[in-house]
Amino acid sequence: MPPASRVTHVNVVMASIPDLIRKKRDGGALSDEEIRSFVHAVATDDIEESQTGAMLMAIWLKGMGQRETEALTREMMSSGEVMSWPEEWAGLMVDKHSTGGVGDKVSLVLAPALAACGCKVPMISGRGLGHTGGTLDKLESIPGFKVHQSAAQILAILHAAGCCIVGQTETLVPADRVLYARRDLTGTVDSLPLIAGSIISKKGAESLSALVLDVKFGPAALYTDLEAARELARLLVAVGNALGVRTAALLTRMGAPIGRCVGNSLEVVEALEALKGRGPEDLMELVTELGGVLLEMTGMAADLSEGRRKISEAVIGGAALCRFQAMLQAQGVANETARSLCSAHSDDYGVLRRSQHQMELKTPADGVVADVAGLTLAEVLHKLGAGRSIVGGPVNHSVGAELLVSLGQRVKKGESWLRLHYEDPAPSPDQISRLQSALTLGSRDAPPRALVEELLQGHDVITLKR
Amino acid sequence: MPPASRVTHVNVVMASIPDLIRKKRDGGALSDEEIRSFVHAVATDDIEESQTGAMLMAIWLKGMGQRETEALTREMMSSGEVMSWPEEWAGLMVDKHSTGGVGDKVSLVLAPALAACGCKVPMISGRGLGHTGGTLDKLESIPGFKVHQSAAQILAILHAAGCCIVGQTETLVPADRVLYARRDLTGTVDSLPLIAGSIISKKGAESLSALVLDVKFGPAALYTDLEAARELARLLVAVGNALGVRTAALLTRMGAPIGRCVGNSLEVVEALEALKGRGPEDLMELVTELGGVLLEMTGMAADLSEGRRKISEAVIGGAALCRFQAMLQAQGVANETARSLCSAHSDDYGVLRRSQHQMELKTPADGVVADVAGLTLAEVLHKLGAGRSIVGGPVNHSVGAELLVSLGQRVKKGESWLRLHYEDPAPSPDQISRLQSALTLGSRDAPPRALVEELLQGHDVITLKR
Repeated sequence: MPPASRVTHVNVVMASIPDLIRKKRDGGALSDEEIRSFVHAVATDDIEESQTGAMLMAIWLKGMGQRETEALTREMMSSGEVMSWPEEWAGLMVDKHSTGGVGDKVSLVLAPALAACGCKVPMISGRGLGHTGGTLDKLESIPGFKVHQSAAQILAILHAAGCCIVGQTETLVPADRVLYARRDLTGTVDSLPLIAGSIISKKGAESLSALVLDVKFGPAALYTDLEAARELARLLVAVGNALGVRTAALLTRMGAPIGRCVGNSLEVVEALEALKGRGPEDLMELVTELGGVLLEMTGMAADLSEGRRKISEAVIGGAALCRFQAMLQAQGVANETARSLCSAHSDDYGVLRRSQHQMELKTPADGVVADVAGLTLAEVLHKLGAGRSIVGGPVNHSVGAELLVSLGQRVKKGESWLRLHYEDPAPSPDQISRLQSALTLGSRDAPPRALVEELLQGHDVITLKR
Repeated sequence: MPPASRVTHVNVVMASIPDLIRKKRDGGALSDEEIRSFVHAVATDDIEESQTGAMLMAIWLKGMGQRETEALTREMMSSGEVMSWPEEWAGLMVDKHSTGGVGDKVSLVLAPALAACGCKVPMISGRGLGHTGGTLDKLESIPGFKVHQSAAQILAILHAAGCCIVGQTETLVPADRVLYARRDLTGTVDSLPLIAGSIISKKGAESLSALVLDVKFGPAALYTDLEAARELARLLVAVGNALGVRTAALLTRMGAPIGRCVGNSLEVVEALEALKGRGPEDLMELVTELGGVLLEMTGMAADLSEGRRKISEAVIGGAALCRFQAMLQAQGVANETARSLCSAHSDDYGVLRRSQHQMELKTPADGVVADVAGLTLAEVLHKLGAGRSIVGGPVNHSVGAELLVSLGQRVKKGESWLRLHYEDPAPSPDQISRLQSALTLGSRDAPPRALVEELLQGHDVITLKR
């Protein structure tokens, strides 16, 4: 379908860009043809930057209907190469996308677990920007790991390991690279059709059989509000299905960090622990739920509960770890390094760089750990070098923090609750006080809540309240 | 005021451009400081083009209040040089601006008439784009006439002739040059605050004592509707006064062409006829009304009717023609050429180039000339080369049309009603048929209507129904 649409393009009379902008400005619905003209002009640099900015603002303010969003996404996908896979992999190609969280190392565990269950996982991931971490940054804390891989290399890695985690290639979805950068400049990031176009066009270009979306809500998520996150999730599911990818979404809580570690190399260590069967409960909940949904959608599990069980077994039994090690080796990590990291009792800091300095923060009183504000931790760590403020900026892989307590845990005054890993700059008194403010102590025990709130699945968007 | 505002600029913390865009996007009113930051960034090229486009669209869709529009206009004016005049000219500096019509050669008669009445008229005019002609294009049909003049040359021309008609200089209102071009690209031309900012900032930079605006409404005008034109006129008057220029506006009908000629050199011929006391009634109505308002505002006439009379006398008595000749000579036309054009019985086509071909269109029936659709004539003439479709494109100065009948005139079937002047391309049968469709014949006599509908004047915007 995508190559065909590109071929027909040359035969159509292009509408003028100012006409298209005026139509959207006046609240009109752009036709498939008109959206194709705009996206084609963006991808081929045949448009003035000021026109791109004006169109993005008109879309932000006037919105796009579902049909328009589908056309936008399809044309973005078709603006570049669309991957193709060996016939024998038909029905096996799966991927996951998360809207971004704090301490979110799910991909590092889920991709190899899915591979161990027989799926092929051509995961194209991103770098961190602002307070959310990026999976590529995490993996780059492993010496030798190469995120830049061509389409041919991706195929070879999937043959070797069943999964890969790579950066966007030059040839994939060029329209998105342009629009993504302009949205940041023009105050038009948080537009549902533009978000959907960006996310789903990239997944569409991976030629997937099934896709699961982790749409987060809560104080440390893109949308704090469940209703707003649900609206995005519904749109993503509908657009994914319209592009021929079976798509489902989980709405998941994002408040306290996922797991106990935040920061690039610390999260790799925690993901390795999880792959060795010692993962924290909340991380494993996300891995098994997201993976379970994918196995059910591909028919590799009869139902969701069988899917969950298969994912869980792949992790507990060590098959996922084996795939992870194969992926590291296929993506440039020396065999010895990969073997060392993946051995049962690895000395991770013999391989990964540890920060030069650590300090421990103490609880200010007796009580029960009621909350840990992930956003606050992430913002301070970002300032200490764990994240980047501008595209292409550097990150310090060893800066991060380890939670030494769990939600619901009873603590005494003066216990260590957070270990901060830092280098240069050292944390200021103000930053330490902000980190302390992330901890909320209560007086009563409260049972821990599941992270997954809802599942949206299929063309009709069934909402399952758990 | 403008230089001071530029000096204080360096001391303020600049808001980030995406912040400003988001504020306007969300319907907020930008502060003076914020508008200054945006305009300064535009004028100094310290902004991404996509951001300019997004801001223009946000302004188009969310509007600007009067205070914001005043600040926008003031900052645009201050983005470049602001002219200064000899002390003895205080109170004498006047100008007129028209929103654009068909056959509108008012400036060519009015500027020298005002000069003859003792005013100084530093008229900075524009080129034609789309169906409206440009005063500079008309003047350039006179061999030797130079529209590009520096600030120092403008001063010298005013000393010599009392009036000049020149193009925008490089140093004047650079922010407008950028925004004007981007508005055309981004579908944001017809925004009241952006129109007001563009028009009044340029007039403000002329350091005028008084300004009169000819805001046209009707089928051949920017706004077909009187109410919409009145809204623009009110805003222009308010913003002009806020910038310290006494400003008034006339709302005038724009349907049939002004006078009998449309096309660059043909309009120069008609303007010369008017300056020799043989001008058509509608053209002279506009000249005397617009000029009368200016003379009243500067105190050079006790009231509007004395103002009208003085302008009329300056034209009829030949003083205006004398100023026009001086202006031609001061702006590069050879003395002999200027003298020849301005002699009582000049051979204009000994000086101006006449088109190679003419053809006459005949009336299809007996009747009374009820209407001549100026927009239709202008659109066909534009296609035949009289106008330009892109900024900087060429125009053919000799292409145009002469009306051989007047509104209200009784005609017989087969009389010539329009003389078309053309070169290459020749008019197609379809174009001739369109030209014919511009003529509407009625059956009953109808008294001709005055063009001027209303006068808006002063801070309180008094509306005088005539």
